[in-house]
Amino acid sequence: MKNSFKDEVEGYFMQLQDEICGSLQTLDGKSKFTEDKWAREEGGGGRSRIIQQGDVFEKGGVNFSAVHGKLPGFLHGTVNEKSTRFFATGLSIVLHPFNPFVPIIHMNVRYFETDVGDAWFGGGIDLTPIYVKEWEARFFHEVLKNTSDAFDKSYYPKFKSWADDYFFIAHRNETRGIGGIFFDHLVSTEEHTLQQLFEFTKGVGQSFLPAYTPIAEANRSKTFSQEQKQWQLIRRGRYVEFNLVYDRGTRFGLETNGRIESILMSLPEHASWVYNHQPLRGSEEALTLSYLRKGVDWVGMKI
Amino acid sequence: MKNSFKDEVEGYFMQLQDEICGSLQTLDGKSKFTEDKWAREEGGGGRSRIIQQGDVFEKGGVNFSAVHGKLPGFLHGTVNEKSTRFFATGLSIVLHPFNPFVPIIHMNVRYFETDVGDAWFGGGIDLTPIYVKEWEARFFHEVLKNTSDAFDKSYYPKFKSWADDYFFIAHRNETRGIGGIFFDHLVSTEEHTLQQLFEFTKGVGQSFLPAYTPIAEANRSKTFSQEQKQWQLIRRGRYVEFNLVYDRGTRFGLETNGRIESILMSLPEHASWVYNHQPLRGSEEALTLSYLRKGVDWVGMKI
Repeated sequence: MKNSFKDEVEGYFMQLQDEICGSLQTLDGKSKFTEDKWAREEGGGGRSRIIQQGDVFEKGGVNFSAVHGKLPGFLHGTVNEKSTRFFATGLSIVLHPFNPFVPIIHMNVRYFETDVGDAWFGGGIDLTPIYVKEWEARFFHEVLKNTSDAFDKSYYPKFKSWADDYFFIAHRNETRGIGGIFFDHLVSTEEHTLQQLFEFTKGVGQSFLPAYTPIAEANRSKTFSQEQKQWQLIRRGRYVEFNLVYDRGTRFGLETNGRIESILMSLPEHASWVYNHQPLRGSEEALTLSYLRKGVDWVGMKI
Repeated sequence: MKNSFKDEVEGYFMQLQDEICGSLQTLDGKSKFTEDKWAREEGGGGRSRIIQQGDVFEKGGVNFSAVHGKLPGFLHGTVNEKSTRFFATGLSIVLHPFNPFVPIIHMNVRYFETDVGDAWFGGGIDLTPIYVKEWEARFFHEVLKNTSDAFDKSYYPKFKSWADDYFFIAHRNETRGIGGIFFDHLVSTEEHTLQQLFEFTKGVGQSFLPAYTPIAEANRSKTFSQEQKQWQLIRRGRYVEFNLVYDRGTRFGLETNGRIESILMSLPEHASWVYNHQPLRGSEEALTLSYLRKGVDWVGMKI
């Protein structure tokens, strides 16, 4: 019975990986995920699943990991001072579609505990449209709000705002996309037991497919111009900037000698940087930029 | 007469910008540099010169800046505790050629002083071949060694090794390219006055064209395959990783609200990430990877 909770969480994340990969493969219809199992010298490992050159997805990964070992020095201060060992498990997804009208999607759910009882959940899901469509953004946020509201009415407003702050490219003064939800260090309280927080995290995991696949299906076959493709490559460049400069998971991985190919699967196959690129006034690209800011009330938006 | 030294340094960097842009334009033969002058709210500014879609250069910048103002908090501790104001001027170059056989080149020279007498020079120049050719690497390092030796015989070994350490992509366990020289915080000593350090920095600046243009000329018209082009895009991806994750100048700029388009001119127009890309054993690409490590004695190499 020892450790049954963490085993349960780990098992759920593996099952979620299977479920999501299966559905994404069906959605794609052309490419299949390939799997790389890896072990970490200090303890634990993972299974990385990558899809490439599909019909919908140019490149993407759905990565499970469960690692343990001695607590890294930089985590001291965030946990009980008596902690000496940690366990961490999570599932991370990033998908880069070919078609500029299909948004980039990211989800991460994770669980962390130490040997003296620190334990918390974290996670996030956010959408990065190359062209922001209001109805899609509202639909995406509605799914996340419904998932959150079913658990705690205070979560969606809090975690939506946290996502605005987290998925923010400060040096560009723009958000990465239209956000979503983000939460970290969710510990048990008088209101919510750890088991209940696990149920919430499961809810987030289960919302991935219903939040994303309708948007992908609606746009996967749209025709696009070379200019629209170029705009996609430039937006992907911003995605690279976010991930390498700000993303905590990426930087954590780089600093702790993580499996580099699994960490950097989040980078697109092709990205572009054009000096001082400015969309034309009134263009679809300019409209998209105008939406890349904090505090947009997507759910309450009249369309 | 007040401030005549810093004016002299600033004037030299501007003149060096003119000289290098003129020669690179002649080398390219197709595109011309366009200039953006910019001012910094807190004091000073710069002139960014960008070349795009040339015959040799797909994208590149030769950027001069001279800024001043209140000392940023994070610089306290590196300067005299009475310092309250700083002045910094520099010239930064990054060029991304089209042809995979023409290496990416970078140079930076800079001068920094405070209002209470702290004053130092820094700089660096390093070459990133997509395909490492031994004779080119040796030639490049010989030019830098000759420049350094003329000033102080201890400089080349010291600054070559510093470049190996600085231009290192830790998470890939590979150097960015074949290195060059790097130096920082060069302050006047009993051996070298500040004026002498300025002469050395000038020497580095003057070595840029002789170190690079012969290599560019020798390779600019070589034919290449799609596979070689793809390898170039992947290597450029590593360049992006270095600049966004490690490069101090880039991170300094991002953190101090620098002019973002001037800072990120260093990123290539096109870059690529392929999951778990591994060159074939015995291939030219594998040979290149085998050279991307610290401590290669290029000057002493028998070819």
